[in-house]
Amino acid sequence: MISYFLLPQDFCVADLSLSDTPSGYPCKKPSTVTVDDFVFSGLGVAGNTSNLIKAAVNLAFVAQFPGFNGLGLSMGRLDLAVDGVIPLHTHPEGSEVILVIEGTISAGFISASTNVVYFKTLNKGDIMVFPQGLLHFQINSGKIPALAFVSLSSANPGIQVTGSALFANDLPTEVVAKVTFLDVAEVKKLKGILGGTN
Amino acid sequence: MISYFLLPQDFCVADLSLSDTPSGYPCKKPSTVTVDDFVFSGLGVAGNTSNLIKAAVNLAFVAQFPGFNGLGLSMGRLDLAVDGVIPLHTHPEGSEVILVIEGTISAGFISASTNVVYFKTLNKGDIMVFPQGLLHFQINSGKIPALAFVSLSSANPGIQVTGSALFANDLPTEVVAKVTFLDVAEVKKLKGILGGTN
Amino acid sequence: MISYFLLPQDFCVADLSLSDTPSGYPCKKPSTVTVDDFVFSGLGVAGNTSNLIKAAVNLAFVAQFPGFNGLGLSMGRLDLAVDGVIPLHTHPEGSEVILVIEGTISAGFISASTNVVYFKTLNKGDIMVFPQGLLHFQINSGKIPALAFVSLSSANPGIQVTGSALFANDLPTEVVAKVTFLDVAEVKKLKGILGGTN
Amino acid sequence: MISYFLLPQDFCVADLSLSDTPSGYPCKKPSTVTVDDFVFSGLGVAGNTSNLIKAAVNLAFVAQFPGFNGLGLSMGRLDLAVDGVIPLHTHPEGSEVILVIEGTISAGFISASTNVVYFKTLNKGDIMVFPQGLLHFQINSGKIPALAFVSLSSANPGIQVTGSALFANDLPTEVVAKVTFLDVAEVKKLKGILGGTN
Amino acid sequence: MISYFLLPQDFCVADLSLSDTPSGYPCKKPSTVTVDDFVFSGLGVAGNTSNLIKAAVNLAFVAQFPGFNGLGLSMGRLDLAVDGVIPLHTHPEGSEVILVIEGTISAGFISASTNVVYFKTLNKGDIMVFPQGLLHFQINSGKIPALAFVSLSSANPGIQVTGSALFANDLPTEVVAKVTFLDVAEVKKLKGILGGTN
Amino acid sequence: MISYFLLPQDFCVADLSLSDTPSGYPCKKPSTVTVDDFVFSGLGVAGNTSNLIKAAVNLAFVAQFPGFNGLGLSMGRLDLAVDGVIPLHTHPEGSEVILVIEGTISAGFISASTNVVYFKTLNKGDIMVFPQGLLHFQINSGKIPALAFVSLSSANPGIQVTGSALFANDLPTEVVAKVTFLDVAEVKKLKGILGGTN
Repeated sequence: MISYFLLPQDFCVADLSLSDTPSGYPCKKPSTVTVDDFVFSGLGVAGNTSNLIKAAVNLAFVAQFPGFNGLGLSMGRLDLAVDGVIPLHTHPEGSEVILVIEGTISAGFISASTNVVYFKTLNKGDIMVFPQGLLHFQINSGKIPALAFVSLSSANPGIQVTGSALFANDLPTEVVAKVTFLDVAEVKKLKGILGGTN
Repeated sequence: MISYFLLPQDFCVADLSLSDTPSGYPCKKPSTVTVDDFVFSGLGVAGNTSNLIKAAVNLAFVAQFPGFNGLGLSMGRLDLAVDGVIPLHTHPEGSEVILVIEGTISAGFISASTNVVYFKTLNKGDIMVFPQGLLHFQINSGKIPALAFVSLSSANPGIQVTGSALFANDLPTEVVAKVTFLDVAEVKKLKGILGGTN
Repeated sequence: MISYFLLPQDFCVADLSLSDTPSGYPCKKPSTVTVDDFVFSGLGVAGNTSNLIKAAVNLAFVAQFPGFNGLGLSMGRLDLAVDGVIPLHTHPEGSEVILVIEGTISAGFISASTNVVYFKTLNKGDIMVFPQGLLHFQINSGKIPALAFVSLSSANPGIQVTGSALFANDLPTEVVAKVTFLDVAEVKKLKGILGGTN
Repeated sequence: MISYFLLPQDFCVADLSLSDTPSGYPCKKPSTVTVDDFVFSGLGVAGNTSNLIKAAVNLAFVAQFPGFNGLGLSMGRLDLAVDGVIPLHTHPEGSEVILVIEGTISAGFISASTNVVYFKTLNKGDIMVFPQGLLHFQINSGKIPALAFVSLSSANPGIQVTGSALFANDLPTEVVAKVTFLDVAEVKKLKGILGGTN
Repeated sequence: MISYFLLPQDFCVADLSLSDTPSGYPCKKPSTVTVDDFVFSGLGVAGNTSNLIKAAVNLAFVAQFPGFNGLGLSMGRLDLAVDGVIPLHTHPEGSEVILVIEGTISAGFISASTNVVYFKTLNKGDIMVFPQGLLHFQINSGKIPALAFVSLSSANPGIQVTGSALFANDLPTEVVAKVTFLDVAEVKKLKGILGGTN
Repeated sequence: MISYFLLPQDFCVADLSLSDTPSGYPCKKPSTVTVDDFVFSGLGVAGNTSNLIKAAVNLAFVAQFPGFNGLGLSMGRLDLAVDGVIPLHTHPEGSEVILVIEGTISAGFISASTNVVYFKTLNKGDIMVFPQGLLHFQINSGKIPALAFVSLSSANPGIQVTGSALFANDLPTEVVAKVTFLDVAEVKKLKGILGGTN
């Protein structure tokens, strides 16, 4: 009786096979959408922290979880072994909030206008925000592995890890040194470690 | 040397003592902002579930956590005892993602255009999205207490609980019945339970 | 002489044959656009009010009127016979303003944060706003048929009619009862009337 | 029982006594808001069309109706006597839709990229859109007075009437002529009629 | 080591072969994007000012420079011979800032609400803003050719030149006169000069 | 005659004495606004490049030029002596376009998702875009001083210079080293040069 409406869908699950647009991906045909398009289990599994940073990041951005398309949200899971670190990075298109589930995490962000560092040790249940685009990091400062989840204000906020951006590229060493104030030798060494060339 | 910039702050912690605006609260004076403005511990404590719905909701919206102001994010903590339920509700100004930390939660949302219910049982580590403004609910469908956290795409997304909106108000019973198809007797009864008048 | 510009079109009439995106439909090729893409006559005809609610809603959302695409506007026509009612509903993605053309309409919306009902009788020429996502309704409280038009702040604001969302779906009766505080018997009855199952 | 929430208001009625912001006016204190803040009767009265254009425009922008603040909507009422005209104008910050209630109105807008005029005669019940920022006009092309209402996609869309902008100002006549291709004599004459100087 | 991310691209160069959307063009496939997609040399060449307005406008909107897609920016180059003029115009979807590189330019915009003209002579190095959608113009008021660049707050802001919109179209002369207050003779003359018909 | 409108202003010059909001500063009272609020001459003067980076940046963000408030635009002037460099930095809230006026500038940005560097030498008249939030830099690669202007897609885009953010702060040296992969000795040295402590 009240079904006198012919309406487009009221969500927009990404069809990743079509070209992205500035507002996100085109929508899957409504008739093919099921509840599984809105549920994602990929964050339920601990990441492998046997690596240089003793940490792992698992993402649920729109590319991993098309249900986020157009909703202004995404998530990630952070596993940090003892002494693990999520290195300095930014999200070019989103703000972040972190929620600590297990362990103790020291987290900080750096103000762009003043270089002041807002730095604090977070315990289980604490949340902390990292405003849009600012450099931030997280360190396991406790004695047990730490687990945290982050939420971001965009379905595709991006991640730019400063160390990778500086040293895992093919920009000539002298240019990297010139734009960062770092020594040429230091740049060369880190290019070696992080996989850069030139 | 690179401090040749005189810049406004690059965040906007809410000054709740000033009048809100359509884009959020005016900002606290930068000189008074400390790291504690960006950290909130209120979600670390379990809510009291000894109530009608056997559940508790703790919010970190901008009113509780002024650090969210202007960042397009907020959070909440859901504690559900066995058989607990977060009743049907909407967020008028935001989409939501739920993350299950403990237990088993059956969650669903209702499409506006088709009345199709997207309903699924979520386990630890699962996430599920509820698109902007659509009716949704969560039920503890397991045998132990459940814990979940939600993130929303606005610092002030609002919550409209359908049961409260319908029955915890002073709108005359006949009007409520008329606009909901419910029996007058049923409306009267629920007004009594939920604190409505008239 | 001043035609030195090669420019994309300055409107974006929806091509409904292509996939929707979070910002709306892709645009029709400019060369195929005529003035008829910007004009819609479907709201000029009275709706049939011989039904359960003694009312009719005709929509001009982007699906009906592709000219609204990308413009942040849509419209609807409300015909209410004597005692007719537009049942409680929300628009998940838009605010609304109603304009009364004929008759007397009592309209209200319910605040999410306080459950306060803002309720008033409107006469010919009055307008009333219903803020984004909040539950609202309209009743013909006069002695003659009423006619009103509504405008909304999105080309595709959606409509979620609470009664239909609750009772015209296939969610098990016990779940509906549990998330709404309603009696199982009442839910069963309304599922019968409104076309729900389970 | 479900009143465990302390929340900011879910609307933002303008407090016109405070300074405007780019997103609109600061909000009135919620405790002072009543239903009358959401209802406006100023469009119910016919405008006086005994003037040069044989037409009258009554506005319900945020300055007239503070309830529109932050909602992305505003309205206006157009009364056109026989031969009346709403002269060429733009809304710098909004799109518009017109709804014809009485009479016959010929309306058009001019494409910026091609100078094509989309022009059509509208009858009772017809709606027509005028995309954001484009020049448009309405003429009573019928034999009886016409009445129409317009809705716009901003609480404060602005109106720039080309004739007034060109001739009701104090810009030197030669400058006006130079930037419009018009004859100096024509500019002088219209400055006289429309109240310009220099 | 830090390359544990599978991510969509963090820019969206326009694929002009696909249909535009309200938020801009779909993105080129990332694998086909090179640095040349982000660089444009078309503004480096002086425009030909041997024309009626003794001025030339070269645009770098998204249609000319697809790298602007989704970034909320575009540019233009203005060459003005002595006595040259950029005639009165608006940008329906963007604000503008002008930067004077050579010469002396008198520029102004007209307030929509008050018809006040904000008019000033700009010298080399000066910048001036023209708020969204308002009528504005630039005149070479010096004794040498002038050069300026403009930046706009949209990848596709549009340009509506008032003279062209009024006189380079096929709207009947009497209609143009009626909606502008101009004499029929003046309209006819300018239609002749600017290429209009009817 | 056409002055039947009572309207709020159609621009919003910042009143820097009031608290900022997420959408920008509150507006100056319209009666106090003059043309000088829309014109800024601070970019007309060459910056002093006798410093470590042989370069100077002069900004016209909303703090320097309140006329940009609410318009989604800002500007800056870059002076680079021979061998001068604008070090690696981001704008947390805006995209940028650079326009080369004199000299030869080699500019690049680093993709967040792939660490690919988009790097090119720009000549007089060339423009290049740097998408929102991505690391970028500019180097005078020619034999004469270079001059460029940048425009950004926000009135307050922010600037985070990586070198300053890393080394001109009070974060303990070991933490900086840990989150950047740099040697402790290198961090200590650069803290000394750039004014950091701890």
